[in-house]
Formats: sequence, C-alpha cells, structure tokens
Amino acid sequence: MLVERARAGDPRAVARLITLVESGDEVLPQVAAALAPYAGHAQVVGLTGSPGVGKSTTTNELVRALRARGHRVGVLAIDPSSPFTGGAILGDRVRMQDHATDPGVYIRSMSSRGHLGGLSAATPQAVRVLEGAGCDVVLVETVGVGQAEVEVASLADTTLVLLAPGMGDAIQAVKAGILEIADVFVVNKADRDGADATVRDIQGMIALGERGPGEWRPQVVRSIAARAEGIDDIAAAIDKHRDWLERHGELRRRREARAAAEIEAIALGVLRARIGSLRDGTQLPTLAAKVAEGAVDPYAAAEELLSQLGS
Amino acid sequence: MLVERARAGDPRAVARLITLVESGDEVLPQVAAALAPYAGHAQVVGLTGSPGVGKSTTTNELVRALRARGHRVGVLAIDPSSPFTGGAILGDRVRMQDHATDPGVYIRSMSSRGHLGGLSAATPQAVRVLEGAGCDVVLVETVGVGQAEVEVASLADTTLVLLAPGMGDAIQAVKAGILEIADVFVVNKADRDGADATVRDIQGMIALGERGPGEWRPQVVRSIAARAEGIDDIAAAIDKHRDWLERHGELRRRREARAAAEIEAIALGVLRARIGSLRDGTQLPTLAAKVAEGAVDPYAAAEELLSQLGS
Repeated sequence: MLVERARAGDPRAVARLITLVESGDEVLPQVAAALAPYAGHAQVVGLTGSPGVGKSTTTNELVRALRARGHRVGVLAIDPSSPFTGGAILGDRVRMQDHATDPGVYIRSMSSRGHLGGLSAATPQAVRVLEGAGCDVVLVETVGVGQAEVEVASLADTTLVLLAPGMGDAIQAVKAGILEIADVFVVNKADRDGADATVRDIQGMIALGERGPGEWRPQVVRSIAARAEGIDDIAAAIDKHRDWLERHGELRRRREARAAAEIEAIALGVLRARIGSLRDGTQLPTLAAKVAEGAVDPYAAAEELLSQLGS
Repeated sequence: MLVERARAGDPRAVARLITLVESGDEVLPQVAAALAPYAGHAQVVGLTGSPGVGKSTTTNELVRALRARGHRVGVLAIDPSSPFTGGAILGDRVRMQDHATDPGVYIRSMSSRGHLGGLSAATPQAVRVLEGAGCDVVLVETVGVGQAEVEVASLADTTLVLLAPGMGDAIQAVKAGILEIADVFVVNKADRDGADATVRDIQGMIALGERGPGEWRPQVVRSIAARAEGIDDIAAAIDKHRDWLERHGELRRRREARAAAEIEAIALGVLRARIGSLRDGTQLPTLAAKVAEGAVDPYAAAEELLSQLGS
C-alpha cells in the first residue's frame, strides 16, 4: 500500500500521503495507524518569522547543510491559507528548485484548508509521513504572524525564530508571541544596518526572561542566508539545543505535549465536523435567525445546538 | 446591573462588560441574554490589512469623520495575541488618545486569550456590548495576517481592506485570503511611489473576479490617513455598500451568517473546554505518551478521548 511505497522512498507516495493529510481524507485513520510505528525518528525543527526576513532562503541553505552531513531532509512550508480559496500559492511550491532533483529531500507546501483540527492536527500528521519516509530532519517553516502558525512552530523539538534588522521585528515578535517559543534566534540579513541593534534588543529580551538553573537560554545567531553565511552556526545552535533536550528529558516531554495537542486537535475536529453537519439542517439557520433578530442570545442558542448532538 | 449601566452610557460599565467577554467569564450567558434585545442596532465595519499599512491612523480619522456626523462610535482593535502571554500590548491601548476624552467614542483593544471559541465568539459578543451601549457604528480593526483575524473581519457588515504601495500587499492579500472578504479596498499612503501600480493591481484582480448581475463590485479608494485625506471617500464607500446590503437583503443574510458562526464558535468552545478538562486527568497524558512512542496512532487516541466525553 501507499505507506509501504513511501517507506521504500517513492516520492510520489510521500506526496500522495501528505495530500491525504492535507485534505483530511477519511482514510487518514488507517494511514495514521500504519505510520504509528515510525514515530519519533526525525528531529523536528520549526522556523518562523515575519514575511521578508528570509525564511525560504534560510531553509534552503539549511537543507543544503543537512544534506552535506548525509541527512535525509523533509521540508513542510505551512501556508496560512485562505479560508475561502484554499490551496497553497504557486510560489511556495516552486521556490526551492535547488533541491528538486535530490532524492534525499522532500519539500512540500501545505495549506490548512479542510483538515479536521486545522494546522495543529495536519502538521504533526505530515511530519509522521516524512518520518515514515525515512527523513532524519523535518523542517517546518511557518509565517510567524497568526496564532495558529505560532502554535504550529511550537510543536517542533527546536524552534528557530528569524528576524531581520530594521523591521521592528523585535516588537512584532513580542506582539505575536513568537518570542516565547524561540529556542534559537536567527538575525538574518546581518550585513544590513541595524543588525547590531537587533541582536542587542533580542539579547536584552532574553536577559529579562526568568529561567531556573539548567533551563535553556535561547541562542542568538547571525546569518546572511542569501550568501550562505552563518548557516553552520545555525546548525550548531540546533545541535546544541538538541543535546540539551536529550540531557534534560525535555525531548520526550515536548513530544508527549505535541502528541497531546495533536490528539486534542483531532478530537476537536471530529466534534467540529459533527456541529458542521447541523449547518445543513434547519436547526442552526433557525437559531441564527433568532439570534440576529434579538429573540435569543447566542449562548442559549449554542446550548440548544449542543443538545442536538446529544452531548 | 452592569448591562443597564452600560445602556445608560457609563463607560466603566462598558469596559467591564468587554473584559467579561474577553476573559470568557462564566456570567457571560446572563450578560448575553440581557444584551440580546439590542442586537442589530449598530453598523459593523471591519478594517484589516498587513502591519504598517496605517490601520490605526485610518481608524482614528474614520472615528473623527463619524463623530462629525453625530454617530456614537465603538472601536474594537483585535490583537492576535500570544497564546503564551496573553493580553493586549500597551501601544494599542494608548494610541488613539485623540478620542480619549470624547464620551461618544468607546475604544478597546481585545486579545483572544482564554475566550471559549476564540476571537470568532468574543468579537461578536463585544460588538453586542457596544450595540447595547448605543453605538451606531462599530469599527473592528484586525491585523490581516492570520486566518482567525480574516474570519473576524469577515463577520462585519462591510469589510475594508487597507493596502499601502510598495509592500507587495496585493500578493500578500491574495495569499492571506483577505481579497475575498474585501467590500472596499483602501490604498492608503497614496502619495507614495507605486500607489498607481497598487490601485491598478487591485482593479485588475477585481476585474478578474466573477460576479453575477446585481452583485457587489468591490470599490477602490485612495487615502492619506496621516494627512486626513480621502477619509470622506472611505466613508462614502461604506455608505454605498450599506445601501447595497439593504437593497439586496444582504444585510440580513450577513447578520444571520454572523450569528450562525457565533453560535458554532460558542458551542465548539464549550466542547473544547470539556476536552480540556480531560487534560488534568490521566487519560490524555497516557494517550499522548503512547502516541509519542508509536504504540497508538493519534486518530485512535482521539477516538478513545472522545469516548470519555460520552459523545
């Protein structure tokens, strides 16, 4: 079957499996069961940052560095897709052509459309597919702008937050909550004016954070991904964090937390689908009309809706 | 009680009610019941756009224009807050000091933290509070970057999408799905280089959209909010869209859709809380450990979790 072909390294089988994950296909439970034994093989690295900080260039160079070490690498580029049109934009799919002919690299854009439980459920499932296909490292690239994307990044073993000088990024990072999830800060485009100030801002924020003895202190690394500079430093910071995770039993803890979030997201997706199934009936439209005209309040309406689910 | 004081125009009562909404307080169902009769009084206008396009300046000027017409105005500035730290950043709260002493204006930053059902449930509830307090217009400002924020904007009667020249905004707008929700495009900072090109891009995209006879064709307006230019054009476009909504029975349809989304979000929030209550027990951690080590797949685990809910 498909999972066996993916195990054997057939890239079309891998692509097809991720499509199933992405579309929330009803065969997913069987696929998930077949993939379960391969859980935990890959190191999962999240990359996030605002648009324009150089995420894809950095990912591209990291892939190159990991390949040079002999790793099989998977890349999931998460697209905060439209709730209306769906599908990933073409640019993401074609941008990393450097690796297009390398059989040791799987690159995939994902949108969250249609998946029960959204990105939080679809991403770990896609990671499982890539683990099943023998990837040693899976890079999960997200745009660090919305809460869902931040949550996805936080599902990684190690999370890189990319910043660039002069974008007011430090403040944006605080605002979007990506500061708290960073294990490694990468100040990319480090040849630009303001790089020192950005590094200083970040180090200042790290210094302000309270952490107990033995807790991880986020690293700050400079890079110029467009010139392939600083990539080894990023890789070294990832390795250092990985060692720390293992030494402190934190890898296991993070992975259990990731599994818990995944289970919850799937369960919630199932419930969401059950509620959605009421949308086609007369119950929800009738209640909505009453709420719109002020005859019923929305909490009472929600309670009535739930009573229809028998829950 | 609180709702009556808010009805009488007491700003502290309004603030307190929105805090209740924001925190997902357990008295919300009673508050909602007391507010239900005032549903539908206010015109709800959504404003969205990437960081840096001038959303707060534009909102500020729109408030001024609406006040000049004698309207009572509410502003909800939705903060895509951290899932980790919560709370709105100070800047949002202090930025619109121009109107701080005007009793006809309520301004409030909201974060989504903790609310059952998230922004999609909290925002309509906060709109209800402002309606209850006698606002004729409620402006809902969101950062158009994540799916949740886009969904919130789509809950308005009329949605403005703000763009600025030279930010690659047209492409970002397509990507984030904010194109589909726009009733009015505002090209702000229209004195900058590239404004004509941005207007042309947007008009090109509008021309490509298929729409039947009588369907609304999104308007494109130029503004320089920092110099208060073009604000009347924005207000005129909003009025035009409002007329169209009423003439085509679309206002009622949109509001029923908004109520349906609100009911669903509340219902889902209740279910989410029930699942979350299992987090403290032994069931979810046990399942998560099994999934992390590959003994169980996450779908089977989710099924087992749901069976604990009796649903």
